[in-house]
Amino acid sequence: MRMSALAAAAGLPVATVKYYLREGLLHPGVATSATQADYDDAHVRRLRLVRALTGPVGLSVQQARRILALVDDPGDDLYETLGSAVGALPPEVPPADPEDDDPYPRARAALEALGQVYDPAFAAVAQLESALAAAEAAGMPISEERLREYGLRAHEIAEFDLERMPGEPRSAVEYTVLGTALYEPVLLALRRLAHQDVAARRDLGS
Amino acid sequence: MRMSALAAAAGLPVATVKYYLREGLLHPGVATSATQADYDDAHVRRLRLVRALTGPVGLSVQQARRILALVDDPGDDLYETLGSAVGALPPEVPPADPEDDDPYPRARAALEALGQVYDPAFAAVAQLESALAAAEAAGMPISEERLREYGLRAHEIAEFDLERMPGEPRSAVEYTVLGTALYEPVLLALRRLAHQDVAARRDLGS
Repeated sequence: MRMSALAAAAGLPVATVKYYLREGLLHPGVATSATQADYDDAHVRRLRLVRALTGPVGLSVQQARRILALVDDPGDDLYETLGSAVGALPPEVPPADPEDDDPYPRARAALEALGQVYDPAFAAVAQLESALAAAEAAGMPISEERLREYGLRAHEIAEFDLERMPGEPRSAVEYTVLGTALYEPVLLALRRLAHQDVAARRDLGS
Repeated sequence: MRMSALAAAAGLPVATVKYYLREGLLHPGVATSATQADYDDAHVRRLRLVRALTGPVGLSVQQARRILALVDDPGDDLYETLGSAVGALPPEVPPADPEDDDPYPRARAALEALGQVYDPAFAAVAQLESALAAAEAAGMPISEERLREYGLRAHEIAEFDLERMPGEPRSAVEYTVLGTALYEPVLLALRRLAHQDVAARRDLGS
């Protein structure tokens, strides 16, 4: 397809598609003349990915580029690559103090209690630490019982998600990045709505 | 306790405590002289709440005030009040077009499929709609199967949360607001870490 059809298929202005081409976020089409090129479904898919990362996910072009590099070249260690790709998503976490040999004590204790395998350098560890610290500071620390409940449900969801991860590495990175960033808001909205459903059934209003 | 002890107990500078007093976010202490007042544990608790709302939750003083007003005066319909309080939390959702008689078709279909009771004016409905639309636009729509899985897990968590909600209305509002805003990041970090745990056990790296 032509550039104009590509832009339309991706739901983007032609100027934006040209910008992504110049920035190297989108691979060139096959030149059909000095001024025209042919694009295919892989271009449409890539544009949807770029649009999601720079739109709802909220990344800068520079941040999106880091993730796209991992999609384009997942390397040999998919486990490592998926961790890096998810670690490049928001929220940003400050780097740990290299002098501190136990920078995430709450997260470590929680993951030990849950019996989970984890890489201490994975950004989600720091993210969990700061979430647990914020709850504690507000006088509402996560109890062991709540940790087990949330941990169990998160694990059930993760089993479901991994079960459906594509086998092909590039698709796996894309699935993981978008499934993390785009499905998180769905899960949170569903939790808020489930609260309302449970509250309604208990007839809190009366 | 004196103002200085109150500030220390809440982990805040005295100037910040004075600012919250002036802004009406914190109720005055009992005057013990022309220049001194006595504060108690209720003041400490309130300061922790204000600090959480304006810190990790990320509200402005003006937005925090709306939630504090609901904590202070939950009114007769707790169900309604809890919905308003949670609706005042991020993410902000644009108001629906009043001309549109079905502004949230994806969220409506999802909640119908889940068989959940909901108030169409509750902010989380718009939030779910925009999350579902973003996933769809990225070419990764939430399948019916995934909706059921996430919906089930969110519901199990909600049952757990509501079971532990304090009976006293003011405490119930506080619990709901903080349990929504502060536990969401915990749940998301746990999901990312559960992905890593499941991936490690499946030995993706090899």
